Amino acid sequence: MLNLKGIYPPITTPFHEDGALDLEGLRFNLAHLSAQPLRGIVAGGSNGEFSSLTIEERLTVVAASRKAWPADRLLIAGSGLETTAATVDLTQRMAGLGADAVLVVTPGYFRNKMSAQALIRHYTTVADASPVPVILYSVPANTGVDLQSEAAAELSLHPNVIGMKDSGGDITKMGRMVYECSSDFQLLAGSGGFFLAALAVGAVGGVMALANIAAEQLQAVQDAFERGDLSAARAAQLPLIALNSAVTARFGVAGLKAALDLIGLRGGLPRPPLMPASPSEIREIRGLLGPAGITPVQA
Amino acid sequence: MLNLKGIYPPITTPFHEDGALDLEGLRFNLAHLSAQPLRGIVAGGSNGEFSSLTIEERLTVVAASRKAWPADRLLIAGSGLETTAATVDLTQRMAGLGADAVLVVTPGYFRNKMSAQALIRHYTTVADASPVPVILYSVPANTGVDLQSEAAAELSLHPNVIGMKDSGGDITKMGRMVYECSSDFQLLAGSGGFFLAALAVGAVGGVMALANIAAEQLQAVQDAFERGDLSAARAAQLPLIALNSAVTARFGVAGLKAALDLIGLRGGLPRPPLMPASPSEIREIRGLLGPAGITPVQA
Amino acid sequence: MLNLKGIYPPITTPFHEDGALDLEGLRFNLAHLSAQPLRGIVAGGSNGEFSSLTIEERLTVVAASRKAWPADRLLIAGSGLETTAATVDLTQRMAGLGADAVLVVTPGYFRNKMSAQALIRHYTTVADASPVPVILYSVPANTGVDLQSEAAAELSLHPNVIGMKDSGGDITKMGRMVYECSSDFQLLAGSGGFFLAALAVGAVGGVMALANIAAEQLQAVQDAFERGDLSAARAAQLPLIALNSAVTARFGVAGLKAALDLIGLRGGLPRPPLMPASPSEIREIRGLLGPAGITPVQA
Amino acid sequence: MLNLKGIYPPITTPFHEDGALDLEGLRFNLAHLSAQPLRGIVAGGSNGEFSSLTIEERLTVVAASRKAWPADRLLIAGSGLETTAATVDLTQRMAGLGADAVLVVTPGYFRNKMSAQALIRHYTTVADASPVPVILYSVPANTGVDLQSEAAAELSLHPNVIGMKDSGGDITKMGRMVYECSSDFQLLAGSGGFFLAALAVGAVGGVMALANIAAEQLQAVQDAFERGDLSAARAAQLPLIALNSAVTARFGVAGLKAALDLIGLRGGLPRPPLMPASPSEIREIRGLLGPAGITPVQA
Repeated sequence: MLNLKGIYPPITTPFHEDGALDLEGLRFNLAHLSAQPLRGIVAGGSNGEFSSLTIEERLTVVAASRKAWPADRLLIAGSGLETTAATVDLTQRMAGLGADAVLVVTPGYFRNKMSAQALIRHYTTVADASPVPVILYSVPANTGVDLQSEAAAELSLHPNVIGMKDSGGDITKMGRMVYECSSDFQLLAGSGGFFLAALAVGAVGGVMALANIAAEQLQAVQDAFERGDLSAARAAQLPLIALNSAVTARFGVAGLKAALDLIGLRGGLPRPPLMPASPSEIREIRGLLGPAGITPVQA
Repeated sequence: MLNLKGIYPPITTPFHEDGALDLEGLRFNLAHLSAQPLRGIVAGGSNGEFSSLTIEERLTVVAASRKAWPADRLLIAGSGLETTAATVDLTQRMAGLGADAVLVVTPGYFRNKMSAQALIRHYTTVADASPVPVILYSVPANTGVDLQSEAAAELSLHPNVIGMKDSGGDITKMGRMVYECSSDFQLLAGSGGFFLAALAVGAVGGVMALANIAAEQLQAVQDAFERGDLSAARAAQLPLIALNSAVTARFGVAGLKAALDLIGLRGGLPRPPLMPASPSEIREIRGLLGPAGITPVQA
Repeated sequence: MLNLKGIYPPITTPFHEDGALDLEGLRFNLAHLSAQPLRGIVAGGSNGEFSSLTIEERLTVVAASRKAWPADRLLIAGSGLETTAATVDLTQRMAGLGADAVLVVTPGYFRNKMSAQALIRHYTTVADASPVPVILYSVPANTGVDLQSEAAAELSLHPNVIGMKDSGGDITKMGRMVYECSSDFQLLAGSGGFFLAALAVGAVGGVMALANIAAEQLQAVQDAFERGDLSAARAAQLPLIALNSAVTARFGVAGLKAALDLIGLRGGLPRPPLMPASPSEIREIRGLLGPAGITPVQA
Repeated sequence: MLNLKGIYPPITTPFHEDGALDLEGLRFNLAHLSAQPLRGIVAGGSNGEFSSLTIEERLTVVAASRKAWPADRLLIAGSGLETTAATVDLTQRMAGLGADAVLVVTPGYFRNKMSAQALIRHYTTVADASPVPVILYSVPANTGVDLQSEAAAELSLHPNVIGMKDSGGDITKMGRMVYECSSDFQLLAGSGGFFLAALAVGAVGGVMALANIAAEQLQAVQDAFERGDLSAARAAQLPLIALNSAVTARFGVAGLKAALDLIGLRGGLPRPPLMPASPSEIREIRGLLGPAGITPVQA
């Protein structure tokens, strides 16, 4: 069983001014991240704007990431698509490119029909066909679908379903999942805002946008937690929440990319229709870096 | 200005048992629909499972529909994608295949960032580049995005934005849009459940899943409405609501396809992860056909 | 059967500066309203801040309204409370004070438990005990409860349940209710924003905050509708939507009271915690009066 | 500053068959609870059906509870009403009856107008006038109002506002509140489903329906947490979630009362319109007691 314990940034996808993939920027960011206390990366997640990339671009990002990312660190590839068959195909191709595992977002366009039964069938088919372990991914803010504990519990029995990234923030549900899923099912917090809380109810780590800019701070949360020093864990966690909110729910990918620019990495603009962060948003993000223990390099 | 007045079914996409496009089934359905009182069809809408098709499949559906559909009847093609650039490209290709207009759904994955400003920029870029008129498409049940009146009003000033399909069902907003948009902006009801109400506040027609199986009944609503006989219009509209709900919100595309099977057309199964309608759902749909004035052909 | 056809303002409750009931202000407003084309009034509805009054104050408002309001015009009294027993008691007392009918809002604190079964039991008990006809009242924006068509249909069979005020704005549901309820069940639009649409699907009138300031304009909608002139009805309806929104969803009771002040009636302040309308809100409301055909008297 | 650390059941209000208060039942339950590891009780909270009681009944419950509950244990009285003035009055009367503090729920009928500004004015007025400390209470599932961190932070500066019960379950917000509020602001978890998670982000205890039947189990969570044994804390917390859900969100007050009956306390029926728990619901609750370490006494 692949051990997922630890912290993962869902890496962003840099673009050139003309909108094309900026693979040099991607490598630049990965070189920086490889010096951080990270268990691995997620390539092609929500913050990677996977939904704004073509299939070929998604594969290119995974291939380029695999080459640039240390072989002994995990590369988890986002391979979810709106149909089961297409997800199977993309999963297999990403595995072929060296992904250690795949992160499979729930389909969302027909959200009202994504019953437990439909999701169980979907993920079972994907997991049966996947050469690498499958991690479920629930992100209701983007998909309108909240994968519930009952479905997770049944899927956790599949030998190739090893865990779940939960970005919904319903901590009661997360606790229930830890309790109801098989004992080796690995829960990952989907946002830095509730990382400590998720660890408290049994998560083993997190895939968090914030890890792109605050890996050390998040690692400090997990380190303190693991040595039973909850006071220190809390002192590390709480100052991160406002910044986390700024680079996720409030300003989105554009905000995260602006934060990358502020610390000297390759952020740039998201693909339209996403708007760039406004000057006042960037100012606000900048103001939140310091309290979170991050030093901006940009004047 | 293209006159949109009238009724349009968003046609379904039939599949073979192996999941491939069933173009013969598509043509069979279109032959039936061409005998109905329809102003045109929408190919590649939500009920066409556009979100479950590849780009190439979407183009194939439009091309095949254009060949099979009378040249003097409108073919509106669903060309929306998650990015502005990809939507421009698909719009141009669909126009090249003979689409009379395009129906462009709001992007939805980054729903929380789909501000009026972002949507105006998106649609303006698409409309600037489109060789054919653009129809906005708001369907919050699928996308989580509800295109508001302010954005619609500004977009209605664009000479190549001719109307909007609104599936949200907020009749107050629809009235407001009719009032605030340019006088030649054409509102289309997005569901047969509120067709008469939408006409009352100024819609010129509707793109309605129900039109796949009840075109005559919907035309009766519009005919009575236009001659000022509201009592007759109501008598035509009200019996359709329960069936409409069954083939849209309640049972979704699978329900609509089951209804097509029941009346002798080519319904079949939706693509997974969508589940097929269950036997009890099919029984319920069957039971709703009669009260809506539809005779099932299947025993 | 009491014929409800027509327009009703849910009257506001004026307060003195010290917060006490201002019955003289109430009578002043009623004198004005009695010259308007109104079928009746609702005393003690949401816009009457019933939820901010004591039981005794609610009774006082009904008693004072009955004295001041013409005997041949309807007085509908809001008698809903959180328990069935208390609602029965208040209903009987209000009937004793001369209310022609009662408007009974759904309980809301335990909204997640207000199943169809619970609501049917509740309203049946109230209707059994009420000396006057009962009108159901669904206002999900305040209560979180949306009384559905199934419950309404069953309740419509009760001889003492004569109709429903629906403020939810789900026009599809309203059409369904008209179809499924007994033929003499009388639906009243709960907001001026969708009055025409509600009439189109079979409503007989409306209880609308806007009727406090625009009774003639709303009557023009209904008159045109009833003579089958939908174009004129729409021309009367659409300019009212923005103002209606300002005195309901956007600025609430405080906005409605500010509008009353602007046209020379006794508005005043709502009870805290409701905040008064801000100067900029009042300016906006003032700006919306003209387009709706209302002349402010205040400089 | 009153130290709130610990566990509190929001006690239920037993009724006689005719619906009258059953004060003997109340005393019976309190005698049992006084032997449990509880810091205090909340009388007149949501689970006490405060919203279904008259003002006089609410006062009676507080007075009877004070007499029956040990003087050295805390009695927190729910004193919230829909207006600021009425809340002040009830707060003062409850303080006069011996309440150690008051728990003041946000008003909810005008939820869309409960801005931070309105809530700050409301609570400041109440806290200014209250003879005893004030605890804020946010329970969006009942009120539709979620008191946000900004308002809590400002209110935490008031010397008579000592804490908050948060039942919303947004653990990210709770962490943010702990960080942004004054250092002596005491956060209480509002549900047993997220008790451990709330402790992890800085809560000092909890007011939890579940504490009526599982005080020892909840105390075990807090004890293990405080000695830094998160593994034991989790082992105590996780088995409680399903039962907690049954006696709160799923089956509500009726479910909680059924659970009391099952363990030999005075549960009984809730006031209509709340329906009693059905036989199948009671069976399910009974089945959940064992896994949570509770022995039913009823056959």
